[in-house]
Amino acid sequence: MGKTDRDFSNNEVCVRKENVTVLGLGQMGVALARAFARAGHRTTGWNRTAGKAGDLAGVVEAASVADAVTASDLVVVCVLDYSAVQEIFGAVDISGRTIVNLTNGTPRQARELDAAVTARGARYVDGGIMAIPPMIGRPEAMVLYSGSTQAYESYEHVLGLLGTGTFVGTDPGLAALYDLSLLSAMYGLHGGALNAFALAGSEKVPATDFLALLVPWLRAMLGALPRFAERIDSGDFGTGVSSKLSMQVQAFPNFFDASREQGVRDDLLRPIYELMKQRVADGHGDQDGASIVELLRTPSTVDRG
Amino acid sequence: MGKTDRDFSNNEVCVRKENVTVLGLGQMGVALARAFARAGHRTTGWNRTAGKAGDLAGVVEAASVADAVTASDLVVVCVLDYSAVQEIFGAVDISGRTIVNLTNGTPRQARELDAAVTARGARYVDGGIMAIPPMIGRPEAMVLYSGSTQAYESYEHVLGLLGTGTFVGTDPGLAALYDLSLLSAMYGLHGGALNAFALAGSEKVPATDFLALLVPWLRAMLGALPRFAERIDSGDFGTGVSSKLSMQVQAFPNFFDASREQGVRDDLLRPIYELMKQRVADGHGDQDGASIVELLRTPSTVDRG
Ligand SMILES: NC(=O)c1ccc[n+]([C@@H]2O[C@H](COP(=O)([O-])OP(=O)(O)OC[C@H]3O[C@@H](n4cnc5c(N)ncnc54)[C@H](OP(=O)(O)O)[C@@H]3O)[C@@H](O)[C@H]2O)c1
Ligand SMILES: NC(=O)c1ccc[n+]([C@@H]2O[C@H](COP(=O)([O-])OP(=O)(O)OC[C@H]3O[C@@H](n4cnc5c(N)ncnc54)[C@H](OP(=O)(O)O)[C@@H]3O)[C@@H](O)[C@H]2O)c1
Repeated sequence: MGKTDRDFSNNEVCVRKENVTVLGLGQMGVALARAFARAGHRTTGWNRTAGKAGDLAGVVEAASVADAVTASDLVVVCVLDYSAVQEIFGAVDISGRTIVNLTNGTPRQARELDAAVTARGARYVDGGIMAIPPMIGRPEAMVLYSGSTQAYESYEHVLGLLGTGTFVGTDPGLAALYDLSLLSAMYGLHGGALNAFALAGSEKVPATDFLALLVPWLRAMLGALPRFAERIDSGDFGTGVSSKLSMQVQAFPNFFDASREQGVRDDLLRPIYELMKQRVADGHGDQDGASIVELLRTPSTVDRG
Repeated sequence: MGKTDRDFSNNEVCVRKENVTVLGLGQMGVALARAFARAGHRTTGWNRTAGKAGDLAGVVEAASVADAVTASDLVVVCVLDYSAVQEIFGAVDISGRTIVNLTNGTPRQARELDAAVTARGARYVDGGIMAIPPMIGRPEAMVLYSGSTQAYESYEHVLGLLGTGTFVGTDPGLAALYDLSLLSAMYGLHGGALNAFALAGSEKVPATDFLALLVPWLRAMLGALPRFAERIDSGDFGTGVSSKLSMQVQAFPNFFDASREQGVRDDLLRPIYELMKQRVADGHGDQDGASIVELLRTPSTVDRG
């Protein structure tokens, strides 16, 4: 069934040559297809706008989705969004195929696609690529998978060419959930860092100089996460902690005053302040800052979706 | 003038015994005073509400600010905010003293206090403590200083007992600016991580399990900061980058859909989306995400201070 089949004679590592199809040859799809082809797999690509990707380095471009799906048991999809995925599979026969969808989406979209795909006789694995295209093929590229364990295990040796794969569960929505969770943390980190560069830059401190303080500082601040996690799991956010919410809320307006005085927008800092103030108003001023997670879990009463 | 005076005979390190006063014996002030006393310095403390701090481990509590200021050339202040600092120094003679103010404030507050203190014949150093009280006395505790270089250097050997000191410039406002910059980045990081825990937790993924993916992921994402810094300093945010703003803006609503479906508030994610959308609308969709810094630098037209 395509499981890794290694031959260690004369120092070579050999894996079974597979047929792999990649649907979508945008920036990410091309990187995926090249990684498969580079490893010697017979790789077929297809893109809505044919011939756009330029040099495909060994990837054979198919004329239609149907041809591309016929060419391989393993069909990897990576396009703009789930509605594009749905369009692509429209009337094509996918029975017997293993569909690995690496398009960014929500848990619900993944679950619905899983249901549709399996109803049509194919196996479904959803995935989230936690990397940018130039990282594909390197171990630092993390790719999350969820859905059919069997399907994943059949092609782990091929998917492993993309980066470090992690199977997070049989609920097909989990990879998307983990993906969005991690990305939300990344946007927090990067937004915070950009805010720091903007504030320091307001006194002409070069960002490349400020880095020397910022990176070790943020690395040290990652050290709070295990404590946050323990508090969240136990529901015990402490009392008499050394950096309690009320003290933080007291000092927080310094950001707004300093931002105004230095000509920097404070938009990125507003929402966490509102959440912290709310916790203090609710009587939790003596707790750890992590306790704002209690508010995040409650859907806002205002629907702004 | 109190410069380090070491004697390396018989393997001892000796520094001159100093008189140090700490004004404010809250959670942070107590930690500071204890660190000085532990090293053998004659340490005097004072707190508005006397006797509140409990065991001061060798710190002598003075009955008045005037007594406390008389006791030492080096006067360290750490209270709630700058208006408390102003109240404390009200009518007390501080001439000839070195005031090191470690109260959290804005660059402007630091500059104004520097002017007031130096006009009264004292030297001024402003500082920002990038640590929580239990970290005080350990090298991981970063303390930023700015203001009088001469005053800082006179007492570097004493201040060094609090943690790793970094003098960031003679503008007394710089320590506060760096402090707020670093803290803003920390709030971004921590807010993002809490958002991730909340999203993953919506499917009952324990935060302590999710940590194993989150921490290495965020550590890897710190790797983008040198690129951000170079782009900010050069003003060149690229074109044809591999993770361009328009692609990110296209995928971003997945956060809002998934948050709504999973019962998690999306407040923390809204402002960065607005900034990214604005950049795309302004014609910069093919740039690196770091380019939102261009918007942060422009004061918002709406004054919400
Ligand atoms: N780039 C990254 O850094 C990155 C990182 C992680 C995840 N991702 C995810 O990977 C996916 C692809 O991203 P990308 O960077 O490759 O984007 P891209 O370069 O903009 O490519 C988009 C691809 O989707 C195709 N497409 C769009 N609408 C379609 C439709 N209705 N029917 C068929 N094909 C359609 C496009 O075909 P045409 O050429 O015909 O327009 C193109 O191949 C997205 O979900 C993205 O969120 C990207
Ligand atoms: N705790 C941390 O994790 C941390 C970390 C970095 C920086 N900081 C900064 O360190 C400073 C002190 O924080 P903390 O944690 O020690 O706070 P705290 O435990 O709440 O102590 C506040 C101190 O300020 C004094 N105070 C308040 N108003 C005063 C006034 N009008 N006149 C005289 N004294 C007054 C209080 O005296 P009473 O006892 O009489 O009320 C108390 O000694 C703050 O600027 C804070 O932002 C704290």
